Amino acid sequence: MSVESLAPHPTAPTAVLDRVSSVLNAFDGPGRLTLSDVVRRTGLPRSSAHRMLDQLVQMRWLRRSGRDYELGMGLIELGSLALAQDRVHTAAMPTLHELHRMTGYVVHLAVLDGSDIVYLEKIGGRLGGSVPTRSGGRRPARRTAVGKVLLAGRETADPELAQIRERGIALEREESLRGFGCIAAPIGPAEEAVAAISLCGPIRAMPFDHRLTNPVRAAATRIWHDYREQLVGVAPAVGSRRGWPSAPRAHSA
Amino acid sequence: MSVESLAPHPTAPTAVLDRVSSVLNAFDGPGRLTLSDVVRRTGLPRSSAHRMLDQLVQMRWLRRSGRDYELGMGLIELGSLALAQDRVHTAAMPTLHELHRMTGYVVHLAVLDGSDIVYLEKIGGRLGGSVPTRSGGRRPARRTAVGKVLLAGRETADPELAQIRERGIALEREESLRGFGCIAAPIGPAEEAVAAISLCGPIRAMPFDHRLTNPVRAAATRIWHDYREQLVGVAPAVGSRRGWPSAPRAHSA
Repeated sequence: MSVESLAPHPTAPTAVLDRVSSVLNAFDGPGRLTLSDVVRRTGLPRSSAHRMLDQLVQMRWLRRSGRDYELGMGLIELGSLALAQDRVHTAAMPTLHELHRMTGYVVHLAVLDGSDIVYLEKIGGRLGGSVPTRSGGRRPARRTAVGKVLLAGRETADPELAQIRERGIALEREESLRGFGCIAAPIGPAEEAVAAISLCGPIRAMPFDHRLTNPVRAAATRIWHDYREQLVGVAPAVGSRRGWPSAPRAHSA
Repeated sequence: MSVESLAPHPTAPTAVLDRVSSVLNAFDGPGRLTLSDVVRRTGLPRSSAHRMLDQLVQMRWLRRSGRDYELGMGLIELGSLALAQDRVHTAAMPTLHELHRMTGYVVHLAVLDGSDIVYLEKIGGRLGGSVPTRSGGRRPARRTAVGKVLLAGRETADPELAQIRERGIALEREESLRGFGCIAAPIGPAEEAVAAISLCGPIRAMPFDHRLTNPVRAAATRIWHDYREQLVGVAPAVGSRRGWPSAPRAHSA
């Protein structure tokens, strides 16, 4: 058996999926790409890249305007569906809105993914525009309050994280963005936290004390309660639980 | 040449992508599926469905918990990126937030897709929970205000649509949801509108007159202005335009 025969056949399903991933990932950053851009960024042969782009346009995962390709409606729909079906997101939404309304600060919901965090939600109102985060965005966990508070449940040897773990709160002052700070709490006990929430705002106006740590802690506790209640209950249809934000709170009062 | 040889080879790229689509689409609705559910919903052979599920889990487009599969983080990230790169969405966000803040009603941004509309954004605050729409959600265009106002630019023979086209405003009273109504305006001139926005709220408290039609029209006009300004300017990086909501408005004032 030659070495070559161990390589996947170019049209094996895995190879096709690798190519799809590689083409779609090429759109992270620039947004609009020509065929030549895609060839350069993926290293795929031109004919193969062209065929793949055509197929993805047909599936509505990409759309074409003139010579440019960009991410399409099919991906927006799938991504939104994935988010709407996410149990942590569903359980958190009513409380996140309330926390934003109560405090006026930008509210985030994030999960750990390797050494990064990924934001599942951002509620910002007017202030939101000046905090350069977005739903679906990724950041090094160690530089964010939500990331630190999630790492604290896993890495017990680090002294900074050990302290965060004990307090159940992580603070971040201008480590990600000059002039801004965040206060985060884990959803669930440190070692089994499923996500974290944070409040972020201009560091000058933001009290890094009980006036904000208490509401953040209370919101995280409520979300953990609603999340677990949802797990033991009947799995809700998309939107049904999100549809009536006051119902879960009435139970927990 | 036999008829069979005209059928695509089962591992041809198109066939693989069709299977990926069919597997992912199976998750619309129920959310969590076992291997048997996927086999039943897609008609794929069990071994083939199993291999596809495994590959999609590796790509993080699905995630597995026990015997269940659900849509994964990779799709949330791709969908959010597609939305963040969408030019209409980017141009609209600051104005949508302002319209919501000014009126208190639920604000939608939607595009036409065949005979359906797809919501690109929903800003709802507290009221949002009682309106059963979601970003990425799909509805028959003809039953929504955003859909009617977009169809009005295309179907000139219909008398109801002709009137909507002339007014530049569509109303919808309890056609989608009992107790709720919406007021929509197109972004752009009727025949070249790129999207539409709407205000929705409880029909009893909602004035279907100039008190709401004027702000909706003004917001649509501003978004159209910002969208076109963005097209002629340098293509913004993800988040940069969204990052400073006041900048585009300062220009248009």
